[in-house]
Amino acid sequence: MKKNPVVHFEMPYKDAKRVSRFYSGVFGWGMNDTGVDMGNYVLAATAQTDKNMMVKTPGTINGGFYKWVKKSKEPSVVISVADL
Amino acid sequence: MKKNPVVHFEMPYKDAKRVSRFYSGVFGWGMNDTGVDMGNYVLAATAQTDKNMMVKTPGTINGGFYKWVKKSKEPSVVISVADL
Repeated sequence: MKKNPVVHFEMPYKDAKRVSRFYSGVFGWGMNDTGVDMGNYVLAATAQTDKNMMVKTPGTINGGFYKWVKKSKEPSVVISVADL
Repeated sequence: MKKNPVVHFEMPYKDAKRVSRFYSGVFGWGMNDTGVDMGNYVLAATAQTDKNMMVKTPGTINGGFYKWVKKSKEPSVVISVADL
């Protein structure tokens, strides 16, 4: 069976500016708030990416932060599958 | 600042055989119980890896499963840093 890899992670935030400051300052991540129309999902580039935001380095992934709504199981790891 | 990427994930299990069956069967992951001396940590190869278990594909990571002990915040995403 073809492997379906983990390609992304997600964590919640309560304050978009604060979470962006923290991860960019401590880990050097590129934090990009996608704006109101995208629910202020914050893209987190943890790895070297090309101009299309695709990761260039094997064994590394990017992720994202979403606005916290209610208690849930997080962080999430996101698995890429061929189909559902 | 150099980016410190996310390179690994971890989740707990209560039954090593069951978790191995599930993720290998559903997602095709290579699940490798490292044995009693390693606390039965189960390595999860979600991506194409070379003979040293290093991931070959950009934008994908491997992970591992540890024996569940008590309630904690999980899953974890693991960040590679130059030093602490």
